[in-house]
Amino acid sequence: MVFSPRGCIRDRREGQLQSKAELFAMVEAFEAGEMLDYQMAAWLMAAYLKPLNGRETACLTEAMLNSGKRLELNKGHKKAVDKHSTGGVGDKVSLILAPLMAEAGLLVPMIAGRGLGHTGGTVDKLESIPGFQTKLSLYQFSRVVAQLGTAVIGQTGEIAPADKRIYALRDVTSTVESIPLIVASILSKKLAANLDALVLDVKFGEGAFMKTPETARALALELVRVARMMGVPTSAILTNMNRPLGLTIGNALEVKESIAVLQGKGPDDTRELTLQLGAEMANQAGLFSDSTHSYHYLAQLLDSGAAYEKFLAMLQLQGAPADALKRLPESKKRISITADQAGRIIAISPMALAHVALDLGAGRRRASDPIDHAVGIELKVEVGDVVAEGQEIASLHVSHQPAPEVLELTNQAFSYRPESDAFEREELILEKIDRVSLPSQAVAMPEA
Amino acid sequence: MVFSPRGCIRDRREGQLQSKAELFAMVEAFEAGEMLDYQMAAWLMAAYLKPLNGRETACLTEAMLNSGKRLELNKGHKKAVDKHSTGGVGDKVSLILAPLMAEAGLLVPMIAGRGLGHTGGTVDKLESIPGFQTKLSLYQFSRVVAQLGTAVIGQTGEIAPADKRIYALRDVTSTVESIPLIVASILSKKLAANLDALVLDVKFGEGAFMKTPETARALALELVRVARMMGVPTSAILTNMNRPLGLTIGNALEVKESIAVLQGKGPDDTRELTLQLGAEMANQAGLFSDSTHSYHYLAQLLDSGAAYEKFLAMLQLQGAPADALKRLPESKKRISITADQAGRIIAISPMALAHVALDLGAGRRRASDPIDHAVGIELKVEVGDVVAEGQEIASLHVSHQPAPEVLELTNQAFSYRPESDAFEREELILEKIDRVSLPSQAVAMPEA
Repeated sequence: MVFSPRGCIRDRREGQLQSKAELFAMVEAFEAGEMLDYQMAAWLMAAYLKPLNGRETACLTEAMLNSGKRLELNKGHKKAVDKHSTGGVGDKVSLILAPLMAEAGLLVPMIAGRGLGHTGGTVDKLESIPGFQTKLSLYQFSRVVAQLGTAVIGQTGEIAPADKRIYALRDVTSTVESIPLIVASILSKKLAANLDALVLDVKFGEGAFMKTPETARALALELVRVARMMGVPTSAILTNMNRPLGLTIGNALEVKESIAVLQGKGPDDTRELTLQLGAEMANQAGLFSDSTHSYHYLAQLLDSGAAYEKFLAMLQLQGAPADALKRLPESKKRISITADQAGRIIAISPMALAHVALDLGAGRRRASDPIDHAVGIELKVEVGDVVAEGQEIASLHVSHQPAPEVLELTNQAFSYRPESDAFEREELILEKIDRVSLPSQAVAMPEA
Repeated sequence: MVFSPRGCIRDRREGQLQSKAELFAMVEAFEAGEMLDYQMAAWLMAAYLKPLNGRETACLTEAMLNSGKRLELNKGHKKAVDKHSTGGVGDKVSLILAPLMAEAGLLVPMIAGRGLGHTGGTVDKLESIPGFQTKLSLYQFSRVVAQLGTAVIGQTGEIAPADKRIYALRDVTSTVESIPLIVASILSKKLAANLDALVLDVKFGEGAFMKTPETARALALELVRVARMMGVPTSAILTNMNRPLGLTIGNALEVKESIAVLQGKGPDDTRELTLQLGAEMANQAGLFSDSTHSYHYLAQLLDSGAAYEKFLAMLQLQGAPADALKRLPESKKRISITADQAGRIIAISPMALAHVALDLGAGRRRASDPIDHAVGIELKVEVGDVVAEGQEIASLHVSHQPAPEVLELTNQAFSYRPESDAFEREELILEKIDRVSLPSQAVAMPEA
């Protein structure tokens, strides 16, 4: 077949079903410079307005995955499993899950992202640990995972390079917010690790990419559907991002919270989400027959310190010296934020705090911005807590005196109601999606 | 207003009404390199799938027009009028109309196109006349028009350069076939001549861009609507392109047919279409109060040789020597095509003959291809004629022996039925569109 960029764009434009051969040829032509940026941009807009169906999305995912390398992993008798989050504020779960699930007997080859805009990134958080290397080659990565059960690295040019170029185009052509394109982008990177199972943390709410449970559910359903079409047992959990997760926002601060959870301590919600996602990973990988059992087994690995030992081993194998955790960066200056009224805190805005953290230097507005690993926000209260006027509700870890607007924004992040008012805290976990109607049990992708 | 390419693309994607300010800013940003090719490609696909309304189309037209110069014409008491055809096979009407309407007392500043694919171009046809210059500056052009009443030049980079770049993008991103984008492209070039009236020849049928009367009517309506919104009295005539126009296809051959019509001779359909379009131009320009009068007056200008004299004067002012018409290129070789059966010719395929003409070298597959002005097709019969087997039906003017497939294709262009079968020739002119429902008599374009 001679591939025609114009014909391919026209097919998409007309909403015609595109074959596996056509979508593979498209990605190959794009990588070879035979389909040009402006042609891909036109195809992407056509795909935005005439969305890909599940099978087309699976084909595009595989085509982008094939543009790079797959992880070669000597699994032995173990199963390789990963977790992906759609991004939130204060979400440090990956730092805990990777060693925890490795300790539980799974392989967790985690290729993680960096923070951008209001969302943080696992790679940035780990890089606050002195000496920790997140830039391993796929070969080095596979060696560490085989030896230890887990490793966490950043995106590498070896994985799905077509996705990287296509995402850059989507970013500047207003074609990001398309569920099939999001699904293909996420899965082309995740599935390059040759996973046996995948669990997705799809967040909804003010601090999430998807603002409502409905849109998050739609994304989760499509992620699960397409990943299963591609032969990978996958489920998704819809989780609440109308408040930050845990009590810290900022890179080294989140490492400290992660260590606390790995030692059986730490905030309830961070621990709970970690255990729920971990139990689901064990479940999808078939590690235990019963997910209640999984949950309690994993809790015990936290409480016993076994997961923390695995974490320390991971730090060592990824280049951090023995005293690295003693040398975590700390800001010189703290600013205490106090309640400007008495009452019950009924909401803590993740977006407001994410913007404060950005202003303090904890995140990036643009991909090229430097970040300050030491700075961030330490919450002293949770949603639902009752406070007295003047009580400390947060501590800003700063490198310089913030502008008055930043302090004002921090205060505005907290909403109060009288203690006597009825109040119910939103559930952390809304629902699990692990059954998706599929055309058949073993779905073959359409052939050319 | 700070223009955001992403915001502009998003607005179009969402089908939001785009303001005059936004569309102007878009074209300016594109010209300034602040909106990049791939961003314009995404906008164009969004515009294809979420079409511009009439007012938006008028704004885009004006924005593209403003990217270049407008013709400065000393009109005196005369009206400037032009005709635009959507392109067909054997359409040499512009060559006749320009001097005819100038002789009738109008100014006809004609900026014409070149042939591409199956359609011929007025500029190519005129360039078969030795010495004829189609590359005048806008200033030289305006001088000739003012002195003589008409001149015909090719597209110049001075006119609507944004349209040229946008069209090139549409061509490679499958976003050509959008009526609002077609309308903006045509009118941004035509209206740069500061016209007082415009007549459109919108062709339908096998040899036309629009295959059906319905699609041609939709394009004609939008052209008339938008041109009138922009303050230019405009009408359109829907004409039949299920057969070639006249008896010649090929550049010098079409010049000869044009000369015959200018001398009161030539094929009926070429003369008739010229007179109908001319009467409509006179009508739109308010030259005469009665279009029947216009028609007869123009016919008399052909029959008297007055229009031909004007044509000769145009050749002289545009650089052709006195003996130029005696030195029109002629092919060395003719190939007679004969009827392979007796009967009535009920159809002559314009597309088949256009492809034969392309194969002979009369046209271009790509814009950079050279053309041979001498070669082409001379028809010896018209649709409806009854022929004997072996009777000559066409003569190919060739520079070299054509491949057997080309001769076969020529034969296949003719369809026969028994003479006794009922037969009715399709009308040349289907309808005129000069009344379009507009929001108001004098339509203001939306402001920012």
